[in-house]
Amino acid sequence: MWTLSASHNWQYTWVLNYDSLIAYREESALDTIDNVTTYMQGIGQQAKQAAQTLANTDTNVKNNALLRIADVLLERADWLKSENARDLAAGREKGLDAAMLDRLTLSDKTIAGMAEGVRQVATLADPVGTITDLNYRPSGIQVGRMRVPLGVVGIIYESRPNVTVDAAALCLKSGNATILRGGSEAIHSNQAIAACVREGLEAAGLPASCVQVVETTDRAAVGELLRMAQYVDVIVPRGGKGLIERVSAESRIPVIKHLDGICHVYIDDQADIDKAVNVAVNAKTHRYGVCNAMETLLVAEAIAAEVLPPLAEAYTAKGVELRGCEQTRTILPACIAATEEDWATEYLAPILSIRVVPDMEAAITHINTYGSHHTDSIITENYTRARAFLREVDSSSVMVNASTRFADGFEYGFGAEIGISTDKIHARGPVGLEGLTTQKFIVLGDGHIRT
Amino acid sequence: MWTLSASHNWQYTWVLNYDSLIAYREESALDTIDNVTTYMQGIGQQAKQAAQTLANTDTNVKNNALLRIADVLLERADWLKSENARDLAAGREKGLDAAMLDRLTLSDKTIAGMAEGVRQVATLADPVGTITDLNYRPSGIQVGRMRVPLGVVGIIYESRPNVTVDAAALCLKSGNATILRGGSEAIHSNQAIAACVREGLEAAGLPASCVQVVETTDRAAVGELLRMAQYVDVIVPRGGKGLIERVSAESRIPVIKHLDGICHVYIDDQADIDKAVNVAVNAKTHRYGVCNAMETLLVAEAIAAEVLPPLAEAYTAKGVELRGCEQTRTILPACIAATEEDWATEYLAPILSIRVVPDMEAAITHINTYGSHHTDSIITENYTRARAFLREVDSSSVMVNASTRFADGFEYGFGAEIGISTDKIHARGPVGLEGLTTQKFIVLGDGHIRT
Repeated sequence: MWTLSASHNWQYTWVLNYDSLIAYREESALDTIDNVTTYMQGIGQQAKQAAQTLANTDTNVKNNALLRIADVLLERADWLKSENARDLAAGREKGLDAAMLDRLTLSDKTIAGMAEGVRQVATLADPVGTITDLNYRPSGIQVGRMRVPLGVVGIIYESRPNVTVDAAALCLKSGNATILRGGSEAIHSNQAIAACVREGLEAAGLPASCVQVVETTDRAAVGELLRMAQYVDVIVPRGGKGLIERVSAESRIPVIKHLDGICHVYIDDQADIDKAVNVAVNAKTHRYGVCNAMETLLVAEAIAAEVLPPLAEAYTAKGVELRGCEQTRTILPACIAATEEDWATEYLAPILSIRVVPDMEAAITHINTYGSHHTDSIITENYTRARAFLREVDSSSVMVNASTRFADGFEYGFGAEIGISTDKIHARGPVGLEGLTTQKFIVLGDGHIRT
Repeated sequence: MWTLSASHNWQYTWVLNYDSLIAYREESALDTIDNVTTYMQGIGQQAKQAAQTLANTDTNVKNNALLRIADVLLERADWLKSENARDLAAGREKGLDAAMLDRLTLSDKTIAGMAEGVRQVATLADPVGTITDLNYRPSGIQVGRMRVPLGVVGIIYESRPNVTVDAAALCLKSGNATILRGGSEAIHSNQAIAACVREGLEAAGLPASCVQVVETTDRAAVGELLRMAQYVDVIVPRGGKGLIERVSAESRIPVIKHLDGICHVYIDDQADIDKAVNVAVNAKTHRYGVCNAMETLLVAEAIAAEVLPPLAEAYTAKGVELRGCEQTRTILPACIAATEEDWATEYLAPILSIRVVPDMEAAITHINTYGSHHTDSIITENYTRARAFLREVDSSSVMVNASTRFADGFEYGFGAEIGISTDKIHARGPVGLEGLTTQKFIVLGDGHIRT
């Protein structure tokens, strides 16, 4: 990848030394990677090799590496901020908006948060090596399953530099090597974080190639990454819908992803009104820009006149714009008319579409038609309907009397998540350490042969 | 797809009727599908709709359909054979070899076997709806997982018509709709089997579109199937390596597959000689043309002179050609010299390559380098090595003191398998009913909101 020339001056303090390392890398890698294919193949080969080591690394070594990475991040906080300042300056020059600059910023608080996140991953149970369902078969062999890492995980993400260390920590704990490709606007921040991660890995006796950050901003590198099926086992894109669509369309490697979070709450006519109002308000207003926020509220006809007015009052107090079907608008005349497009829109904003439906079956049909198979909840006291809703709604999380906002790896007890999948293959719903592993079969015999 | 004209004569006996149905279909579909895209989109839409019904169908209804399908296959045996005879005649004309014609043939015995297979699938436990790990979280919500069907499974296969009903039965039991695309040489047999399956489905009150066989031999239909990601959730190719490579390269939908079965037995220097000979002979000679047969034998240096001569005697008695490394040939002078290519070859024939290695670590390196991540076994009495081999070999099945021939859905207790996967995403190893399902999260609350 890059090597230091023999004449390079190692006599600086670590801060200067880091600066010069980065400066050197920029010269030797960022600006001079003239063959992206060769460069990416090299990264892939090294990752594959590191993955073999990591798959057989003891839990305590992985935990020690995580704790060392956390330490290094805190020790290098000033340097991280100074590298980050270069990205911020470039971003301002490029005219990035305030929200993007905010996501890009590394402060003492975000650095402490990253370190704390890594420490928390160290406390999680290691899924690798767990053997389950080891049973005797009539032939006399014992057959079971052992949980093993996927191998090499490719992460493609946008401007949040904290993803670099969050994703690396989860992959490391689950025994996977990582190839990270962040946005060009965060290149200095990501390289600096990667240097800290490498230092932590090496301090724990692990190869630095367990976590590699792609050092070129050439977009061709992403294309190469998505085609290296011989080295990369799964791709996890993290970012906006545009990024995820591009990655999915182009990838020759399985992708763990969700595109949209069009989540629903259905208030059944046998709902408890207080629970209905509490949950529907929380699902929409707890946070607006998240994938598990409710975007469409469905209400049973028989209860609409009772539950919609107090709900509308709560939403209006919080500044949520309401867009309703015709029946909704007879109850809430101030409500804007919803169009067909509203049912299929993820607002990620203080906007809510509302539709009155005749019954639960109509609600389920609406959800399975317009939803994104992310998270949907029914509010009801009726046992039979609760049971049917759980079975019939085809989403990665289906809930009864709970806010869609609970669809989250932390809330589900995974400790952390690398993302949420709405696909059906491999991992579905929040993806934690287990979703970053697979199972192989093990067979124990005593000279058994097949006859 | 196809409709009967009002004037069509329904007064024949069922045999004639079936004949005329098939004849009619050939006219209306086989020969006149002029827009393959539209035709395949229609199949996809119907499959998606059928999948929604199937996902919520009770176990006893699915079992009843399976039993009815088995009955119909037996009742229609003569008709199935006569349709099959048309394929056989065409095959002879096309010059298919004896092995291919054999695979294509439907006899009373193979039809009885198909019916028995379907009945066995009816006896298997239904995985759909199973809820596991339902635990309380600190927030008060209960979070668990419910097993659900994948949705629509596309099966692409070659000349064995029994795949039509085997695959349809497994998909039906696991709640999935199926789109089957068999080889053109089996088109009449597959259509006839599909007619029996439809009759069984409808007798049990299920939509016939739960199982659809593509009625055109136009190869463009395969391309369409592999791109219908909006309708099809997973593709399972069944057949030779060429087919599977083509499908994998072209598919925009996840594929469950294995390409090669380059399986190894490693005889450790602490192996029991009797067990070693028994297992190594069984793994190679029990059946030659199967993916879980051993292709390369690895032997620890320290035990090679003791174990290779009795093994060579057993192999030679069975007519197995031996190809060995240099060290092997000093012990077995009659052995042909193995080349680098031999280590990477799946013979599927009475040929075995043999390599003497210094120790287990060298054996594992050989397996992880040349193997196909299918099935590998160590023969040893050493506890520490057995444990390390299980952990370090990166294959879908890893065994101790057992023949690689055990890598099979029946032997593992799944009752049946749709194939074996050497991929790491989703299913790995033999794929039975569970591999044809996924899990969604369910959350039970009592008005819980996120704070």
